[in-house]
Amino acid sequence: MYFGSDNTGPVLPQVMQALNDANTGYTGSYGADPIMDRVRDKVREIFEAPEAAVYLVATGTAANVLALSCYCPPTHTIFCAPKAHIHVDECNGPEFYTNGAKLTLVGDQDKITPDTLRTAVEGEGNRGVHGPQRGPLSITQATEMGQIYTLSEIAALTEVTKSFGIPVHMDGARFANALVALNASPADMTWRAGVDVLSFGGTKNGCMGVEAVVMFNPDKAWEFELRRKRGAHLFSKHRYLSAQMDAYLTDDLWLTTARQANANMARLADGLRKIDSVSFRFDPQVNMAFVDMPRAVLQRLAAQGAVFHADTPDLSSGAAEDQITTRLVSDWSMSEDNIDRFLTIAAG
Amino acid sequence: MYFGSDNTGPVLPQVMQALNDANTGYTGSYGADPIMDRVRDKVREIFEAPEAAVYLVATGTAANVLALSCYCPPTHTIFCAPKAHIHVDECNGPEFYTNGAKLTLVGDQDKITPDTLRTAVEGEGNRGVHGPQRGPLSITQATEMGQIYTLSEIAALTEVTKSFGIPVHMDGARFANALVALNASPADMTWRAGVDVLSFGGTKNGCMGVEAVVMFNPDKAWEFELRRKRGAHLFSKHRYLSAQMDAYLTDDLWLTTARQANANMARLADGLRKIDSVSFRFDPQVNMAFVDMPRAVLQRLAAQGAVFHADTPDLSSGAAEDQITTRLVSDWSMSEDNIDRFLTIAAG
Amino acid sequence: MYFGSDNTGPVLPQVMQALNDANTGYTGSYGADPIMDRVRDKVREIFEAPEAAVYLVATGTAANVLALSCYCPPTHTIFCAPKAHIHVDECNGPEFYTNGAKLTLVGDQDKITPDTLRTAVEGEGNRGVHGPQRGPLSITQATEMGQIYTLSEIAALTEVTKSFGIPVHMDGARFANALVALNASPADMTWRAGVDVLSFGGTKNGCMGVEAVVMFNPDKAWEFELRRKRGAHLFSKHRYLSAQMDAYLTDDLWLTTARQANANMARLADGLRKIDSVSFRFDPQVNMAFVDMPRAVLQRLAAQGAVFHADTPDLSSGAAEDQITTRLVSDWSMSEDNIDRFLTIAAG
Amino acid sequence: MYFGSDNTGPVLPQVMQALNDANTGYTGSYGADPIMDRVRDKVREIFEAPEAAVYLVATGTAANVLALSCYCPPTHTIFCAPKAHIHVDECNGPEFYTNGAKLTLVGDQDKITPDTLRTAVEGEGNRGVHGPQRGPLSITQATEMGQIYTLSEIAALTEVTKSFGIPVHMDGARFANALVALNASPADMTWRAGVDVLSFGGTKNGCMGVEAVVMFNPDKAWEFELRRKRGAHLFSKHRYLSAQMDAYLTDDLWLTTARQANANMARLADGLRKIDSVSFRFDPQVNMAFVDMPRAVLQRLAAQGAVFHADTPDLSSGAAEDQITTRLVSDWSMSEDNIDRFLTIAAG
Repeated sequence: MYFGSDNTGPVLPQVMQALNDANTGYTGSYGADPIMDRVRDKVREIFEAPEAAVYLVATGTAANVLALSCYCPPTHTIFCAPKAHIHVDECNGPEFYTNGAKLTLVGDQDKITPDTLRTAVEGEGNRGVHGPQRGPLSITQATEMGQIYTLSEIAALTEVTKSFGIPVHMDGARFANALVALNASPADMTWRAGVDVLSFGGTKNGCMGVEAVVMFNPDKAWEFELRRKRGAHLFSKHRYLSAQMDAYLTDDLWLTTARQANANMARLADGLRKIDSVSFRFDPQVNMAFVDMPRAVLQRLAAQGAVFHADTPDLSSGAAEDQITTRLVSDWSMSEDNIDRFLTIAAG
Repeated sequence: MYFGSDNTGPVLPQVMQALNDANTGYTGSYGADPIMDRVRDKVREIFEAPEAAVYLVATGTAANVLALSCYCPPTHTIFCAPKAHIHVDECNGPEFYTNGAKLTLVGDQDKITPDTLRTAVEGEGNRGVHGPQRGPLSITQATEMGQIYTLSEIAALTEVTKSFGIPVHMDGARFANALVALNASPADMTWRAGVDVLSFGGTKNGCMGVEAVVMFNPDKAWEFELRRKRGAHLFSKHRYLSAQMDAYLTDDLWLTTARQANANMARLADGLRKIDSVSFRFDPQVNMAFVDMPRAVLQRLAAQGAVFHADTPDLSSGAAEDQITTRLVSDWSMSEDNIDRFLTIAAG
Repeated sequence: MYFGSDNTGPVLPQVMQALNDANTGYTGSYGADPIMDRVRDKVREIFEAPEAAVYLVATGTAANVLALSCYCPPTHTIFCAPKAHIHVDECNGPEFYTNGAKLTLVGDQDKITPDTLRTAVEGEGNRGVHGPQRGPLSITQATEMGQIYTLSEIAALTEVTKSFGIPVHMDGARFANALVALNASPADMTWRAGVDVLSFGGTKNGCMGVEAVVMFNPDKAWEFELRRKRGAHLFSKHRYLSAQMDAYLTDDLWLTTARQANANMARLADGLRKIDSVSFRFDPQVNMAFVDMPRAVLQRLAAQGAVFHADTPDLSSGAAEDQITTRLVSDWSMSEDNIDRFLTIAAG
Repeated sequence: MYFGSDNTGPVLPQVMQALNDANTGYTGSYGADPIMDRVRDKVREIFEAPEAAVYLVATGTAANVLALSCYCPPTHTIFCAPKAHIHVDECNGPEFYTNGAKLTLVGDQDKITPDTLRTAVEGEGNRGVHGPQRGPLSITQATEMGQIYTLSEIAALTEVTKSFGIPVHMDGARFANALVALNASPADMTWRAGVDVLSFGGTKNGCMGVEAVVMFNPDKAWEFELRRKRGAHLFSKHRYLSAQMDAYLTDDLWLTTARQANANMARLADGLRKIDSVSFRFDPQVNMAFVDMPRAVLQRLAAQGAVFHADTPDLSSGAAEDQITTRLVSDWSMSEDNIDRFLTIAAG
């Protein structure tokens, strides 16, 4: 009953098989492997972006910080949500890779609205050389709390960025989960909506450790390659990154996996809704929910081996009826039995 | 007939099997997996260093730059050989991770001698605040040209560093190849000889992509962890790094693999010595040789599909009898047939 | 009628005289001038800190960023007010000099309270390696809006920082103005209250361009010297920095100058209070006021040549009765005539 | 008898007068002072470069590192002489400001030749992403040893740089000394010869602390302004930088001062040539000489209060007849009496 994160489960069998299959003979290193050529073609086709530059790295943070460093000079600021992974979970990685760009927090919610964005952008870059200059917007799709920007919401944000001439990065660690929830096309959710560069996640959705950076305009492709190498993120035995992504994109595996993860959360949510003491912060749309549950219920679940992220790390002391905000994340590998068992325990 | 590099071949079957074996169920992420506990214990035991801090990253460059950044403030300089990987092959990664430390080249050879080291160290750090301060020595074992520092040579270097109070880093991308060639113990070749921190390579010796950083004094362990995360090198699904290293260190696999790679080079070298037109820059001790061969021979080899690094990238034009310096590297997976075929073609 | 800033006026005649006096013969460069020895002694005496390390730079930003870089590793965050100069007016200088540390904004006001500080500090550094670690608190005395922390308010803040073991920096660009307003001793307002390092301003209070960094614990003195040189802030003809600070600290010039600047603002404020349409954001304590005034009044003032910072850069359009927030700053060189003339125009 | 450096003497009376003259009333800060407008015009006129961007900073290191940081991405390398100030005397400032670019040392002499440059440039940037990319050439005019590049020598170097498409920086800390020695025009010695950006020194030639950065192509002007602010090098009371440079460029003061400094060295050199035991490393062309002198002579000079830079810091022990390499620098303020006294003592 692991609902702690979507990075604690196993790798998809098809991805593991691809690694085994790739493990024969000699091949080009540092990205010069034929599998990478195939991956590049697939990504371009999926995104309807024949000119896009496509690169692989092994961590989502690497994808984010390298992508942002190509679009944010050190004297500028990145606009992001207060809960953005780049702000709270990358130990100053964006600041490191941009050589000291700032992160300007937009609004106080998980999702950025056009109004909060406009206010934030207007608040920077208006003091000549004294303050930071306006750099890229970075949005997370799905967000760190599992919410989704609709296509029109993305377009409304990029309308603002266009009016200021600033680029747009999308942190798509859970890109597939959002895409299938919206039933949108990859192109519509990215470049057609005004996104310039995407961190296209594989790891949280069943890969071992691979993320693609997709630059819809290849102007900064060479700079990206240099920054990737300098950041120590260029793999010598690159075929094993390529093979993961290749399998991931084959036969819609990335989409079916995301659908399964989302469906697992939907099953969990359906059950939780029937429990009076449980309330939802918002309706789960992908593979993540934020719920308020009584301490006693969480204690019971933890005692039975369930894993989750409660806002109060120490569940042991305090009133049984305290409502504690808890993050629940599902992945594709979650069994229905485990979900149901969790619900049974929660129901008491 | 790939003699281009030891990063173009496949992964050891035992390592691949370990990845498959690890691929079940949920486990702790970001290094909190039980396999990592086992790896840490094994490394400490192998190095007879029960207090050592042990961390895994996926690339050799990451191991080097993160290790060095813990030991070199930005106002200091790293002493290294002109051919050191950190100088010529990491696209300013050490400068990036140290925030602008300098690299002072020691001597003009592949190996550093106590005399060249003393001269170089004395030449820096003697101008007060004006010049860079004396930072760590970084030596490569085996070197980029495949030479080895004997234990007494290492001790002679660290005698110099101790007299200046500067720390010592060892780039051990080919640590195992050197170790078996010297028939030394890991402890004798590192901390007992005065090495403070080691990049302990796995990738070039049969792993998919894993290197350990071993800090014999754990004082900077937490700083390393922060720098690894900030550098985007902390894997969420860390078990797949752990599993590689675990298999690598089981049943002396790392040593037998290195012995095989070295033996393959020895077989190749034995054959080449019988060819009059081939001369060696130095006697190959590990899995690498630098030889001078006539252009015509290289053309013949290339035409038959052999891969190698010639100093003259374009072999097609020029006198047939030109002697061209060529790097040959073997790995464990090289078949005797391929070696012999290479020799047959070379012999003409 | 310049009320735009305290950096637009002339240099104190005593400071200029000292520069002229220093301009004879040869002397040691890079800080090795005898005047600097005198300055160091004076600062130590004034602060009752015989062990303090004392350094001079030419800009307030240099003092801040160099001081902070000695106390904030790149993986940490600096706690500061949303209006702090280091956040809004140094174009990412702190991020540059710390190599990418973050700035965590404390509360939403000009002044930091113990409660907002505790909340902010607790909100960081609790996610292991994932988020930034807790770095120094930076407070501004007087604040960017001209408010003052009392000695007990400073002590209440440093009680919080001590409980977390984090160091304290004070941006004292207007240190003297605050000191005379509080009628406090330099030691009481700094190290006795828990401040570790001070940017001790001279420029805004009548110098040409000199600030001292005072490190009450000299442990990081050498690191500061290296960072100053690396940042290109070590003056070769250092005597001309020393001479400014020497004159500034002679015969209490720094205190009488600050008293004059504060008195000028008091005279202005007294007059403004008599005008019904003018209201104060808070009672001016130093040489700065934030007032709300009708657009018509500001238009009239501007037309007569008055200089000030209105929140609405374009005064020309809009309703005459709009109340516009305006910053007014006085310096020592302001004549009473000019103040009175400003008041007369404002009164209409 | 100060021959230690050209930064130990006083400021030119005209420059000091200009500071006094500027010290009246209020004026624009941060470069918005009318004197700066005049300076910009003068620089453009002197350099026959009506489009040039012109900025002032207070130290030569600031001019160099800010200029270079606009022309050298962090993944590139700067080509410079082994004795270049940017390499040996700026405590990794260039590496800091470029965020970790490398410095590739060209040749082993004080002056760079087209051949050594071509070899150095060809040796970098040929390994794809693995090594640093080719960044700017930085030459020093006059060099750190007081030698001069003739116009044709500069042109020969920029012919090489043009063939590789790399920009050219000139460190002109002693620009005026070289210019008058060559009797060249500023335009001929810079942009007409292929120089893209110049650090135009004032401090060593009689100013208090001011250097201009002249960008002959203004494309990177705004980036420079941001970097200057971020580096904490933008002066609030900027008029006092402007006033220095304004006086320096008025009535050819900068040229007559440099002529005087050079003439003082010529007088010294003429005298030294008559002393048998003294030999010159090269013929002094500007205000600097490198000579070999017997230890006994240096001891005698030091005993009489002469100041100079001997390669052997400790003169007291060793054979009297040892020839010790010594740097002698003259400035404009050196009296003939002092020069002659030095010569008398040296002659014994």
